[in-house]
Amino acid sequence: MDRQLIRELNNKINEEVKIKGWIHKIRKLGRIAFIILRDRTGIVQCVVDTKTIDIKGLKLEAVVEILGTVTKTNNSSSDIEVQVTELNIISKVIDDLPIEINKNNMEANLDTILDNRVLSLRNLKINAIFKIQAEIAHSFSEFLQKEDFTEIFTPKIVAEGAEGGTELFEVKYFDKKAYLAQSPQFYKQMLVGAGYERVYEIGHVYRAESHDTKRHVNEFVSLDLEMAFIEDECELINLETNLLKFIFKNLKIKCSNELSILEAKIPEINGEIPCLPLPEAIKILREKYNKINLSEDIDHEGEELISQYAKETFSSDLIFLTHYPKAKRPMYTKPSENGLTHSFDLIFRGIEITTGGQRINDYEELKNSIIANGLNPESFSSYLDIFKYGMPPHGGLAIGLERLTSKLLNLDNIREATLFVRDRYRFRP
Amino acid sequence: MDRQLIRELNNKINEEVKIKGWIHKIRKLGRIAFIILRDRTGIVQCVVDTKTIDIKGLKLEAVVEILGTVTKTNNSSSDIEVQVTELNIISKVIDDLPIEINKNNMEANLDTILDNRVLSLRNLKINAIFKIQAEIAHSFSEFLQKEDFTEIFTPKIVAEGAEGGTELFEVKYFDKKAYLAQSPQFYKQMLVGAGYERVYEIGHVYRAESHDTKRHVNEFVSLDLEMAFIEDECELINLETNLLKFIFKNLKIKCSNELSILEAKIPEINGEIPCLPLPEAIKILREKYNKINLSEDIDHEGEELISQYAKETFSSDLIFLTHYPKAKRPMYTKPSENGLTHSFDLIFRGIEITTGGQRINDYEELKNSIIANGLNPESFSSYLDIFKYGMPPHGGLAIGLERLTSKLLNLDNIREATLFVRDRYRFRP
Repeated sequence: MDRQLIRELNNKINEEVKIKGWIHKIRKLGRIAFIILRDRTGIVQCVVDTKTIDIKGLKLEAVVEILGTVTKTNNSSSDIEVQVTELNIISKVIDDLPIEINKNNMEANLDTILDNRVLSLRNLKINAIFKIQAEIAHSFSEFLQKEDFTEIFTPKIVAEGAEGGTELFEVKYFDKKAYLAQSPQFYKQMLVGAGYERVYEIGHVYRAESHDTKRHVNEFVSLDLEMAFIEDECELINLETNLLKFIFKNLKIKCSNELSILEAKIPEINGEIPCLPLPEAIKILREKYNKINLSEDIDHEGEELISQYAKETFSSDLIFLTHYPKAKRPMYTKPSENGLTHSFDLIFRGIEITTGGQRINDYEELKNSIIANGLNPESFSSYLDIFKYGMPPHGGLAIGLERLTSKLLNLDNIREATLFVRDRYRFRP
Repeated sequence: MDRQLIRELNNKINEEVKIKGWIHKIRKLGRIAFIILRDRTGIVQCVVDTKTIDIKGLKLEAVVEILGTVTKTNNSSSDIEVQVTELNIISKVIDDLPIEINKNNMEANLDTILDNRVLSLRNLKINAIFKIQAEIAHSFSEFLQKEDFTEIFTPKIVAEGAEGGTELFEVKYFDKKAYLAQSPQFYKQMLVGAGYERVYEIGHVYRAESHDTKRHVNEFVSLDLEMAFIEDECELINLETNLLKFIFKNLKIKCSNELSILEAKIPEINGEIPCLPLPEAIKILREKYNKINLSEDIDHEGEELISQYAKETFSSDLIFLTHYPKAKRPMYTKPSENGLTHSFDLIFRGIEITTGGQRINDYEELKNSIIANGLNPESFSSYLDIFKYGMPPHGGLAIGLERLTSKLLNLDNIREATLFVRDRYRFRP
């Protein structure tokens, strides 16, 4: 008999089935035992007559195979259950569980959850987080495929960093010193110039910053895209708006079960996402929220307040901040007027999830910008030289996958949306 | 007027269009100049009357915008051309091109091609390689999504290596020593055990081996998958067979243009891919090909000969070798009988493109196997401990994306199928 998945049992009423999975819960009532079995598709209650089937020694989280008949039930949580005729243990549990998995909300602090990552992922809520994350990444790719983007795989071992300032992890590369890429920035621009015009990459990026906040990890997944022949950054803002609409719609369809387990509400994007020039945002923060410590850029508290403003004023969970000052942006950012740039951030529920913008595409302008940023053009020659040979106007953006996931699901800490956390203090498991 | 892509011009006969791209070729014939324009979708001939439009100073590879009318033509290479009414330079070429791009076959050695990676990618043949590669990766993902696999993103900064023997790149991780992951092996197994059952990852892996061959680079993309509740390795062999059929079919449909540019022939898989136990393969190599230096394992020459055998005997470009000896496989490999294992390689046109197999899923058996391999179980505790808490039978495989691409396209060196090569001597650009 073939194995049936638990989600398929609704179509198997009064049929004999074979199911496989983990023992999620056991409850005994006289000679009857109620076993909740869990597989990758859900949970189901199985009814065992302990007079005919011995379940002594059966432990929570053991992997079993169950044969039985699917019946209708009046149980409040489900329409069906399985009347068990045979139960075989496939893989035993040989030690006490270090954490309790089958509670709706795990009673453990974040460190314990991360120390026991694989077991904590068996918890229904925690498990659902990464099914949703997978669907975000998949939808990102699906949308861009439809928009004629080419997927790229660029090296993470690099000779130089893409942006001054951010610290890099050093790699011993044979007898040379190399670094882990802090972003695919240079490579995605180079591949636009190589003729692909529209490229995207879903890959890890590395930041050796030693801060320890709820918003930062040191290795994360960046959803990166870059496109040629744009007029200005507004095309990128439009693209990201449509991209997020597509992702959110897909999540509602494909992850409705996971979203309901997590009690998460996907934001509505009606028409456009509001845009606010940064200088105006700073003025609003000063006048409306009495936040007087900002001059050129916005800090984390400012991001939270401007999100509050967006919610109150536009009923929007998302807001684009535009017109960032040149002084606060990397050397490749395209300047506009009055010391400002064609760049933007997207703030989502109090946190920046995207930085993007148009890039400089003129060789001399880029070279001068590198110098003006106190950097040496020779260190960037394999990037800079490309601009000598016909580089179309272009721009792009990056979305932090873990940040987007955590804000969508109202998780308190980005670590909850990171499969295996790498931070200042953690590089195991 | 909106920009039209070159591939769309066939539907615009006698219409005025705006096209944008790179100057691929210029040929002058009296007062007429024939310009081949190239965008991400193809090339088209543009006819310029140099009496009315000045093209002095126009250089190959400049980025331009052309306005004109699409007309039918009797040209042998195309049905249409564009009668130019306006030509504007968007981005100039300010230096001599270091390589000639517009030849069908680039007249440059591999090092020159890789030194000038971004320019060489503008060559039609070289450009096509990575469109095909992107479609392979995308098809891999699409197939596994349909088979209910969850995409995962596992860390590349790790505390230990997954397999003894292979050398690791060292990373300075704050005040600690870490390594770059040589495979997601432990993590994908752990996530199977976390309840996802079926997982896949498309990501970089790192091998610090210092050999310098046409088959190896030190950073490459691994198409990894792992699945639970398998009977044995035959399920994995079946899955990979169907996966490859799916990828090959997709390539023929979606990349027909690129395949024809590269004159590449996608292999036919009729029914099953032939399977041969390794001991039998070694016997055949000894008796039929007089290759007598093999005892337990196969070497690269053996892979080439066994491919020749598969072609001659089964008319197949692919052959699975099965029943590898325990001594030649990593410690997590599931043993079968007589010192052999439930593992396999897939050989494609003379090279191994996949290693896969069933894994040990019993805690004690795995612990003993680690010890028998001369390793310390404590070094693997975050991996090993998972097997105490209910681990289903499972297995998986990995496909090297660059190897598969290079063999599909009959490229001589894996570096030709690697966007930005990282090897013993190269970590730039």
